[in-house]
Amino acid sequence: MRKGLLLMAVFAGFVVAKEKIDDKELLKMARQYFKPLPKVAENPQNPVTPEKVKLGKMLYYDPRLSKSGLISCNTCHNLARYGVDNLPTSIGHRWAIGPRNAPTVYNAAIHIAQFWDGRAKDVEEQALGPIVNPIEMANTEENAVKTLKSIPEYVELFKKAFPNEKDPVKYENIGKAIGAFERTLMTPSRFDEFLKGNTKALTEQEKRGLKTFIEVGCVACHNGPGVGGNMFAKFGMITEYWKVTYPYVLVGKPAIKVDFGRFGVTKKEEDMFVFKVPSLRNIEHTYPYFHDGSVWSLEDAVRIMAKTQLGKELTDQQVKDIVAFLKALTGKIPKHALEVPELPPSTDKTPKPEL
Amino acid sequence: MRKGLLLMAVFAGFVVAKEKIDDKELLKMARQYFKPLPKVAENPQNPVTPEKVKLGKMLYYDPRLSKSGLISCNTCHNLARYGVDNLPTSIGHRWAIGPRNAPTVYNAAIHIAQFWDGRAKDVEEQALGPIVNPIEMANTEENAVKTLKSIPEYVELFKKAFPNEKDPVKYENIGKAIGAFERTLMTPSRFDEFLKGNTKALTEQEKRGLKTFIEVGCVACHNGPGVGGNMFAKFGMITEYWKVTYPYVLVGKPAIKVDFGRFGVTKKEEDMFVFKVPSLRNIEHTYPYFHDGSVWSLEDAVRIMAKTQLGKELTDQQVKDIVAFLKALTGKIPKHALEVPELPPSTDKTPKPEL
Ligand code: HEC
Ligand code: HEC
Ligand code: HEC
Ligand code: HEC
Ligand SMILES: [Ca+2]
Ligand SMILES: [Ca+2]
Repeated sequence: MRKGLLLMAVFAGFVVAKEKIDDKELLKMARQYFKPLPKVAENPQNPVTPEKVKLGKMLYYDPRLSKSGLISCNTCHNLARYGVDNLPTSIGHRWAIGPRNAPTVYNAAIHIAQFWDGRAKDVEEQALGPIVNPIEMANTEENAVKTLKSIPEYVELFKKAFPNEKDPVKYENIGKAIGAFERTLMTPSRFDEFLKGNTKALTEQEKRGLKTFIEVGCVACHNGPGVGGNMFAKFGMITEYWKVTYPYVLVGKPAIKVDFGRFGVTKKEEDMFVFKVPSLRNIEHTYPYFHDGSVWSLEDAVRIMAKTQLGKELTDQQVKDIVAFLKALTGKIPKHALEVPELPPSTDKTPKPEL
Repeated sequence: MRKGLLLMAVFAGFVVAKEKIDDKELLKMARQYFKPLPKVAENPQNPVTPEKVKLGKMLYYDPRLSKSGLISCNTCHNLARYGVDNLPTSIGHRWAIGPRNAPTVYNAAIHIAQFWDGRAKDVEEQALGPIVNPIEMANTEENAVKTLKSIPEYVELFKKAFPNEKDPVKYENIGKAIGAFERTLMTPSRFDEFLKGNTKALTEQEKRGLKTFIEVGCVACHNGPGVGGNMFAKFGMITEYWKVTYPYVLVGKPAIKVDFGRFGVTKKEEDMFVFKVPSLRNIEHTYPYFHDGSVWSLEDAVRIMAKTQLGKELTDQQVKDIVAFLKALTGKIPKHALEVPELPPSTDKTPKPEL
């Protein structure tokens, strides 16, 4: 890489030396690691059609998929708040407090697998989990299907979304419809503009942050179109993670148990404390951070990463630059995600909510 | 009234005699009791401006007004479900189950007073209640204001909504902004078309229902632009209400206590078991019915009303016709209500959610 001209900048009485970024070099380097987001995250097994997306969005927003009639996907993945609940760990049925932080649903469809431990293969499979999870929506498959079958508008929408099926209102198709909706939840950002060649899309500081992010080694794990989301890695490559995050855990809260991560799925020793590398898109908005939601500040999260994953101490300037770059990953929420559909009324046949 | 031509209709083997409705007569009669909805429910003390409505909508949808960071106005008054939660009684902070059914916020701004017992004078005053109610959002005034002050986007929006105030981010103004938003939540229906003179806007059955609704005496209480909402009345004028609703209370649920209604507010004996007469607009969607949410079917609710309030037993045909009329009160949800605003991120200064 050609070393750029050193610029001497005088700030508030002290002198900082900054390297001028070579835009072309940086773009070339960045393109080795990253790609712009797709418009839609296609799945050949579940083609995205307008009919499925329409139905999926209604199901996403409908609290009647839960036992109580109160909790919808949007309760924990609030699309108006970048697809998260901004709680350390989520609250579900009867105020059950779960063990993990809710990741965003925006861009989740492009991940290598779903959940922090990757236990679901795609968004279609994933969506079937929370509906019957006793500490989330606490429903049963039968009751969810019975509810939808009792509402003529839904029966019609399932027929349209799955036109070649005899009995389209079935549990699996709930996952397919919600999955199709989620496949449209892509949030392109200024970083995508940059990757497409518009080097003016990022500020100098953001470019410096991108360069640091690459050179320090973050890209070893956070790469691809999601800037993460496409591999697994141990949380605590260099230092056990809980030793580093412990001081950040909110005082007075019940101690958070150490989470074995992917070991719980594969039972292989090498998967102990291994988690899916999270996508860093919209990370500015998806606080608190890490699978246990233990850390509220993005700067702290960046410092912790450098320490636990790379054994490095970053300078204040490096942290600030990286954070500026990460904030440039904040994307545009697609308009249709926030246009909430009217939900059809229940009927006499609809199972009653159970509190 | 000129008696219309008797029509002999033969249905599935038995004979029903039906009176032909005189449209002009009916319209004239209806206009004595009812009025179309206003476009916006103005309040000279709190003029509705686009700036206030924009801010009010964000606050309405923002769960950070609650102590837990999880519960927003929309949790219990889901705008996608006609402004209600469709639960017998509402669930709030830490899964507290409240004593009353959540009424809809659509058209609420035109009511004579707010809450089942009328204890708040208007939507501006009302909105300040649930935020600090320990079984609803469980926050404190100070914490709510501190939260909003910590978010620069909100500070800016309050300045724009209350341009002549020195310290616009104050508790009272939360109520004014949400109130202004609620004043736009009017849902005109086919019945309004009818009242404006288009007698074709209602079907024959709906007109028969309207006529019955008037002649049987429902209009004594359910009248005005809200078809209710503009007076108080004892629930159980003729028969004590709980003796009639008791069989409808869901089996196996904790017994619902008898609710003194407005007596709790005024402490006057004549207000014992007195409630605000609810608006019947969108009643098709706002099940379950009555202040205790004890009754799920609209037909049952209509029968109970005739019995408790008028001492009458309605025929099946009368009930069906009235219900058909009531369904014609289902209105159009204003588009902007369901266009959810993006909510700005919290900052380091934002109080943390407390579960
Ligand atoms: C009670 C809160 C809650 C509800 C309700 C809920 N989720 Fe989640 N969601 C979570 C939590 C917590 C996780 C992480 C769990 C884990 O990794 O073990 C998660 C994970 C996910 C993921 C994986 C994202 C990723 O990056 O791996 C997706 C996608 C998702 N949820 C979508 C949904 C959908 C769709 C629904 C409704 C059908 C739903 N969620 C309902 C809390 C919730
Ligand atoms: C060896 C792999 C690896 C490297 C290198 C790495 N990360 Fe991570 N990163 C992870 C994993 C795994 C997690 C999830 C940890 C957890 O919460 O379980 C994570 C989480 C994060 C989070 C929190 C995401 C969220 O949604 O909570 C941020 C921010 C982050 N990384 C930034 C960085 C930065 C900046 C660097 C470089 C200084 C970096 N990472 C280097 C693997 C890595
Ligand atoms: C935990 C559930 C819950 C939450 C949260 C909640 N409400 Fe309510 N709301 C209710 C219940 C229950 C009632 C009836 C209480 C009563 O009459 O005593 C009610 C009554 C009302 C009424 C009166 C309507 C009428 O016809 O009298 C309005 C308006 C209203 N709420 C608006 C709001 C607003 C605005 C917010 C947020 C600031 C909010 N509510 C938060 C449950 C809730
Ligand atoms: C004397 C006054 C009065 C008369 C007459 C009256 N109502 Fe009511 N109505 C009320 C009151 C008060 C309530 C609220 C009762 C409660 O739940 O506390 C109510 C509630 C209702 C409800 C349930 C509303 C809801 O949101 O839960 C319906 C439906 C209804 N009335 C329809 C009718 C019909 C149809 C008639 C005529 C057959 C009628 N009412 C006659 C006073 C009256
Ligand atoms: Ca998070
Ligand atoms: Ca109701």
